[in-house]
Amino acid sequence: MKEILKFRDKRDWAQFHDPKNLAEAIAIESGELLEHFLWKTAGESRKITKEKREKLAAEIADILIFTILFAHETGVDIEKAIMDKIRHNEMRYPVEKAKGSAKKYTEL
Amino acid sequence: MKEILKFRDKRDWAQFHDPKNLAEAIAIESGELLEHFLWKTAGESRKITKEKREKLAAEIADILIFTILFAHETGVDIEKAIMDKIRHNEMRYPVEKAKGSAKKYTEL
Amino acid sequence: MKEILKFRDKRDWAQFHDPKNLAEAIAIESGELLEHFLWKTAGESRKITKEKREKLAAEIADILIFTILFAHETGVDIEKAIMDKIRHNEMRYPVEKAKGSAKKYTEL
Amino acid sequence: MKEILKFRDKRDWAQFHDPKNLAEAIAIESGELLEHFLWKTAGESRKITKEKREKLAAEIADILIFTILFAHETGVDIEKAIMDKIRHNEMRYPVEKAKGSAKKYTEL
Repeated sequence: MKEILKFRDKRDWAQFHDPKNLAEAIAIESGELLEHFLWKTAGESRKITKEKREKLAAEIADILIFTILFAHETGVDIEKAIMDKIRHNEMRYPVEKAKGSAKKYTEL
Repeated sequence: MKEILKFRDKRDWAQFHDPKNLAEAIAIESGELLEHFLWKTAGESRKITKEKREKLAAEIADILIFTILFAHETGVDIEKAIMDKIRHNEMRYPVEKAKGSAKKYTEL
Repeated sequence: MKEILKFRDKRDWAQFHDPKNLAEAIAIESGELLEHFLWKTAGESRKITKEKREKLAAEIADILIFTILFAHETGVDIEKAIMDKIRHNEMRYPVEKAKGSAKKYTEL
Repeated sequence: MKEILKFRDKRDWAQFHDPKNLAEAIAIESGELLEHFLWKTAGESRKITKEKREKLAAEIADILIFTILFAHETGVDIEKAIMDKIRHNEMRYPVEKAKGSAKKYTEL
């Protein structure tokens, strides 16, 4: 986190990092990540060569960096957000109903 | 990370979590995050009420959880990926050229 | 439509064009379209040079071609879908309430 | 097209429809379309019930309406853009190389 903010502030980029732009950046990067799997089957998508892994790592880093910046700009505590979501999903997807099912909680 | 995997494995969901599906999930969630800012100006997007912050926190958590699962499935070391990307961007965006500019490195 | 299908069938690509993959393709292309406006203000996004217009035209074409193929694969009548949606939105967004407002119908 | 513009102008919405916002709208709607296929296999995604088809039709309409508005705002001729793209792809994906292959033209 500190490294990301230091990188940004040296370049005076906070001015561009309003939440709207950062949310756009996350969406764009996640499209680039998805492109690696287009026209592939689920099975093919599991086969990750070393070269592919490096490309995926770069896409993941972009998504995470922009998401961390977004959280910073909007005052969201990332660790708390993740823990809250897990607790919330534990209620929405009780093990006995959700086990082995890909259904949305509204359809369980 | 441990919490996320425990949650998943209790529900036997690893079978659905191939990289293709996880990349789809990240893209979908990032669209939901973006929707909070549609038709808004950059300035409006900076005004975050407490209620809005909670909704954004839930969207961020979804993106991060799926990204962490994606990294787990594809063998990507998240911290290394972020540090590598920062180093890479330091070369692509040298401070003296990039300061205060929103241009892509290919246009600097 | 005919041209698009002819192009595809000559290359034997229908096998890859299941709805899931086509929906991915639409999402990916729409991310590429959005990238043209990242870090730009609304005002800047309205200034379209001839060169930029050609790039945007290529992105729009990608989105439309995959959407038309998607509609073909899923048996959706495009013109009817658009007219139905306009009728639906006329009810959700009555002129007297929606005029000049960017609010979602759920907030009107 | 005429119907879409009439609907919009009655509500005085052109002011919100700068290219940046419209590109966001397209990305958001394409995420919603994709959500219908998340965690599904390609095979499952081909099974479209009547109820599902109606929901997909509504998503497709959203994507197309915003894309048509985007083209209108940016001065893009939709039919020409599609025909140009097909011609372009005919060169990038010659039948003898691309037949039955899901590879990108850069890898053919």
